[in-house]
Amino acid sequence: MSAYNYQLIIKNILEWGVNRAPNKEIVYRDLVRYTWSQFYERVKRLANALEELGVKRGTKVAVLDWDTHRYLELYFAVPMMGAILHTINLRLPPEHILYTMKHAEDEVLVVRDEFLPIVERVKDMLPESLRTFIITSDTGTMPETKLEPAYDYESLVKEASPDYEFPELDENTDATIFYTSGTTGLPKGVIFTHRQITLHTLCVALVSLFPGEFHLTSQDVVMPLVPFFHVHSWGMPYVAALLGTKLVLPGRYDWDLILELMRKEGVTYTYCVPTILHALVYHPKAEEYRDVFSRLRASIGGAALPRGLALRARELGMKVTSGYGLSETCPVLTISGYKEHMLDWPEDKKLEVRLKTGLPIPLVKLRVVNEKGEDVPKDEKSIGEIVVRAPWCTREYYKDPEKTKELWKDGWLHTGDLAVWDEDGYVKIVGRLKFVIKSGGEWISPLILEDLLSTHPAVSEVAVIPVPHEKWGERPIAVIVPKAEYKDKITEDDLRKFMLKLADEGKVAKWWIPDRFIFTDSLPKTGTGKVDVLKLIEQYKTLKLE
Amino acid sequence: MSAYNYQLIIKNILEWGVNRAPNKEIVYRDLVRYTWSQFYERVKRLANALEELGVKRGTKVAVLDWDTHRYLELYFAVPMMGAILHTINLRLPPEHILYTMKHAEDEVLVVRDEFLPIVERVKDMLPESLRTFIITSDTGTMPETKLEPAYDYESLVKEASPDYEFPELDENTDATIFYTSGTTGLPKGVIFTHRQITLHTLCVALVSLFPGEFHLTSQDVVMPLVPFFHVHSWGMPYVAALLGTKLVLPGRYDWDLILELMRKEGVTYTYCVPTILHALVYHPKAEEYRDVFSRLRASIGGAALPRGLALRARELGMKVTSGYGLSETCPVLTISGYKEHMLDWPEDKKLEVRLKTGLPIPLVKLRVVNEKGEDVPKDEKSIGEIVVRAPWCTREYYKDPEKTKELWKDGWLHTGDLAVWDEDGYVKIVGRLKFVIKSGGEWISPLILEDLLSTHPAVSEVAVIPVPHEKWGERPIAVIVPKAEYKDKITEDDLRKFMLKLADEGKVAKWWIPDRFIFTDSLPKTGTGKVDVLKLIEQYKTLKLE
Repeated sequence: MSAYNYQLIIKNILEWGVNRAPNKEIVYRDLVRYTWSQFYERVKRLANALEELGVKRGTKVAVLDWDTHRYLELYFAVPMMGAILHTINLRLPPEHILYTMKHAEDEVLVVRDEFLPIVERVKDMLPESLRTFIITSDTGTMPETKLEPAYDYESLVKEASPDYEFPELDENTDATIFYTSGTTGLPKGVIFTHRQITLHTLCVALVSLFPGEFHLTSQDVVMPLVPFFHVHSWGMPYVAALLGTKLVLPGRYDWDLILELMRKEGVTYTYCVPTILHALVYHPKAEEYRDVFSRLRASIGGAALPRGLALRARELGMKVTSGYGLSETCPVLTISGYKEHMLDWPEDKKLEVRLKTGLPIPLVKLRVVNEKGEDVPKDEKSIGEIVVRAPWCTREYYKDPEKTKELWKDGWLHTGDLAVWDEDGYVKIVGRLKFVIKSGGEWISPLILEDLLSTHPAVSEVAVIPVPHEKWGERPIAVIVPKAEYKDKITEDDLRKFMLKLADEGKVAKWWIPDRFIFTDSLPKTGTGKVDVLKLIEQYKTLKLE
Repeated sequence: MSAYNYQLIIKNILEWGVNRAPNKEIVYRDLVRYTWSQFYERVKRLANALEELGVKRGTKVAVLDWDTHRYLELYFAVPMMGAILHTINLRLPPEHILYTMKHAEDEVLVVRDEFLPIVERVKDMLPESLRTFIITSDTGTMPETKLEPAYDYESLVKEASPDYEFPELDENTDATIFYTSGTTGLPKGVIFTHRQITLHTLCVALVSLFPGEFHLTSQDVVMPLVPFFHVHSWGMPYVAALLGTKLVLPGRYDWDLILELMRKEGVTYTYCVPTILHALVYHPKAEEYRDVFSRLRASIGGAALPRGLALRARELGMKVTSGYGLSETCPVLTISGYKEHMLDWPEDKKLEVRLKTGLPIPLVKLRVVNEKGEDVPKDEKSIGEIVVRAPWCTREYYKDPEKTKELWKDGWLHTGDLAVWDEDGYVKIVGRLKFVIKSGGEWISPLILEDLLSTHPAVSEVAVIPVPHEKWGERPIAVIVPKAEYKDKITEDDLRKFMLKLADEGKVAKWWIPDRFIFTDSLPKTGTGKVDVLKLIEQYKTLKLE
């Protein structure tokens, strides 16, 4: 007998976590409550049932569901069998969903009862590879469906044997696939292996050993507020399994229920995009939940954390940290912790640190480079593209060698994000390579302008976009949703004066000040809840500027 | 260009750590102080110098030194070049050292000036492979030597270029080799790869995310008190590099200096064997250093932590945790943290948890099995052998397929350690498979008896060993070093009565009580500072028992 060749596979994360914390709970809304040990039994039953239905190594199993305990079971059972989990982005237009299912060659679709009508409507356009449907439901009964063959998830789990020996996979086995929402063109598929997910899990967890407000430990109670279909819900379900935290799953977002669940279950940690944080902290009943907010820490990613929003969260007693990553990077690349010498800094200076995109998490190599691939100076002014190497960067865009080549130009993953960095190595995103504003040959960062505008008391949401300009090429304009109490009271001139004052204080260059401040009732959003910049640009492209 | 294939290599740990914390200090005694960034520059210079001397991929570079900053430089430079670091165990008898150097086929020997006379004495017996000597010294001058060719370490570093690009090694490249001190037979060589050391580093660091007193973070000031030649100093220099902690190196142990350094440099974390902890907390001036002890945490391994010693450390304000591992396992396997439900337990109940050998650290799979390889019940009574799987178990005994086969019987690494475990999964070592006492066909654990005896106020050190017995096969006897103030006052009968009382309280079976309590001035120690049980057994094997 020779040495055991230990592989970095998801099974080893789950088994270690369950072994340490078998009795910690997983809670789904006010509907389901069980322990991690019971969870693992259901994962084994599910694997038996899937095997019975013909799921083998490499089979793609697609899922259309909210963040439920059943989705969590699929997160583990499917990859641990050697099959591949396709987390379908619910927010994509139906034709894009169909495209991704065909492209991935999904064979099994797990679908929530409320999405059945949509799937049935496109029944004849579903990919030929698809041969089995599994229906999930909170009602306890299997709905009628035209899809066939269709099985009831709960019956499958109930009837299957709880004995299942998950295989000793090679760590480079593919575990998951999903599609980037693709602000331009068709969605692109990215695949992650067991090794990538395992190392991402270890290194995201390690961040808590460095000072900062991320600080997630086994004692936390975690509520995901990033959909399970969105880049492994930032990988946090796997981190929660390793640490054996109590996990509270919100299902479809219902803010009243979420706040109640947070209170009842003692949630201490969440993570979400700024839009979701906005919904939480500006909830009409937010003041009544100060007890909840005051024990809550949140990591914010997916878009820059606006200063005004961070201040509002702080005011409610929350601790908020920024993070940064991409679909292509599993996703986490940076989190905005402190360095030891910053711990004694005054709170406002520390806030500046937290508002940066942060420091690379363990093992991530990150550079900010110019078009020639050279590092730009660490002076907080010179703008360059973020390029990275990490043990969890996707190896390719699925079936797209051309785009893969672009992504991995020079052996570094090109993020397409523009940033500045400082002497301490902190990066701050200033825009997308695609969306940056070029005025008179110089770059203007929409993010920096949005950040400053968000601190005006009348501003609820803001997007800064480029508009074509005869003389300057492009000029920035700001599209603003005012707070209810300021509606029809705040004027364009007020905001211009506000920005001029900031310019006087040296906080922004005068020529960066947007040419127009336009008020609107709401901003268009993408499938993942971010502001749909492309749509806005389209909408205002004919705006005449002086 | 295709995706970058990120490897788990030591370079990536060091570069990440230095990048985050370039200005944290490394201090060697009261002699040297520099930053991690200056450290890395010296590591590059050293690599250039070694390359100049012919060190290539696979070259074995042996080191004979105390825990110095130079040794730390070699810890990184040698493996990062693709060469293999042989950490020679200073405490081995010279003929064993020679044996290991021949067996490893060392080509370069880095030797401290004070060990030169020993090496020169055996000059003609040195392995033929050895072709270069490098001398380290704190004096600033190169001593005269008969060895040739011989180079001065500091001159080499000074004269070499600071520009060196460490190669992108395959993660399965061998990084280190050392020899187990081998209580029986010749020393056995174990090798660790970059991947093993990297994963060990990540997972040892992760332990601090679970409740307990280990709790090492980037803010700690670490002083190793496990020699660098002993299983990578438990891997902690690599953990310190990743976390970017301040690191204080004691060189040759001088207790007065160590206590002074701890005070002056603000040391918060150390790790050592019980013998070293004993030297610290029973130091004649210990009381004067309560300020030092009260901010100090220590992880104790290498032998079971005796209760009396733990209580003494506690009494001085120290926090002490047990850990467990082997030379063959890089070494860490378990650390004695708490589970969340134990946090409210009273202090004495928590002490019991800390005195156990602990819980497996992340990714370690550990079982306690009987001779048939079946798990023994988790009842704290049934004794079995600990077998493990971890991403950092050595793949083999170097050039010894027979012993490797034994080690990896059934695909599990057989530790040779006997233990009981409890429902929560905590293991407690009760003895070595080789040293356990078999009386009337039943096992008696020397460790449990030593632990109980250590709580008697008169006992400074104690070893329980088997002595042949006509009727019972073997019976335990206790060999005891009394505290100075109890010498010639404590009697065999006192201790027998003490044990009988514990038996009455149900803390030990009556038939386990040692047949004899023998007083002595000191216990023989092995090269790594543990009690030399074999020597004691030899010494008392003809003792007549009734």
